[in-house]
Amino acid sequence: MTAEFATPGPSPLPGTPLPYVLEAGEGERAHLFDQLFTVLLSGDETDGQFGVFTMEAPKGRAIPVHSHTGVHEIFYVLDGKVRVVVEDGDGGTLDEVLTTGDFGYVPAGHRHTFRVESHRARTLGVNTGGFERFFGAAGERTASRMPPARPVVPSPEQLGEAARAYRNEFHLDAHLLD
Amino acid sequence: MTAEFATPGPSPLPGTPLPYVLEAGEGERAHLFDQLFTVLLSGDETDGQFGVFTMEAPKGRAIPVHSHTGVHEIFYVLDGKVRVVVEDGDGGTLDEVLTTGDFGYVPAGHRHTFRVESHRARTLGVNTGGFERFFGAAGERTASRMPPARPVVPSPEQLGEAARAYRNEFHLDAHLLD
Repeated sequence: MTAEFATPGPSPLPGTPLPYVLEAGEGERAHLFDQLFTVLLSGDETDGQFGVFTMEAPKGRAIPVHSHTGVHEIFYVLDGKVRVVVEDGDGGTLDEVLTTGDFGYVPAGHRHTFRVESHRARTLGVNTGGFERFFGAAGERTASRMPPARPVVPSPEQLGEAARAYRNEFHLDAHLLD
Repeated sequence: MTAEFATPGPSPLPGTPLPYVLEAGEGERAHLFDQLFTVLLSGDETDGQFGVFTMEAPKGRAIPVHSHTGVHEIFYVLDGKVRVVVEDGDGGTLDEVLTTGDFGYVPAGHRHTFRVESHRARTLGVNTGGFERFFGAAGERTASRMPPARPVVPSPEQLGEAARAYRNEFHLDAHLLD
């Protein structure tokens, strides 16, 4: 049995504010669409203050336009090229291609999308504590260490339930990126 | 006049929860001891929830043992090798060498130290909002894009004042790392 087909084990996160370390790639891994998400830290360890995750994905289509009610989020590019488009709250948009080492900030309530524009890209995200488990709830937990070979597309019911639970609003009528 | 001798300009951070991006290396840069700190996000943009910074330093001596009252902190290694030692709260210590992509968590109140063990190392830090400006207050703001050529050693008064303002307790009698 390879890791690809192994059952995800228990979370390596302690669930309470205790010191711990994770080797690169370890964490709570989940597949959603064509992305591999790995949660390194959750609100359970930070008194709800913040969570940390990494994302890896191949070049692909833009994520549906969405916003996070009450949840701030950062994009820090570890490797590759990611285009981020976010409404500036004043009728305009900020539309930037971020490469390795670049940083983008999306405050709570601002509608945004992003698209990987290099062969592969990896980002590190930080969010208001709790939101980091949206990806596992909307997609599926995995033992795999790679982005999914075939996109993991949740049912509208599963996506809707995860979105409600994690205050992630999709705006399917909004257009920010071709 | 080179950037090395330029005066640090105004902060590129908006100071309020608005979207923005920073090119790699941009942010509020400060020198403290042999380290270059760059603040990418502060508590002012996140309703006090979290701040984000990068740190770059050459191989060197361990940072004095310290703890952060009420402030959680992560170490994510972007490049190089960093040894982190943190008291586990149960009489023992967690003592780990972290390399690129590895993650370490130091919850509030846990005494800890770290040391760069490769030629150079870069880390990304996330902390409870507000603490990120300790480095600039304890050291000096800089326009330089490099770690300092000579260590920036604050006076005991400046270090003490910054430590009190940012709830950073030094434990100079504690020994965690040779």
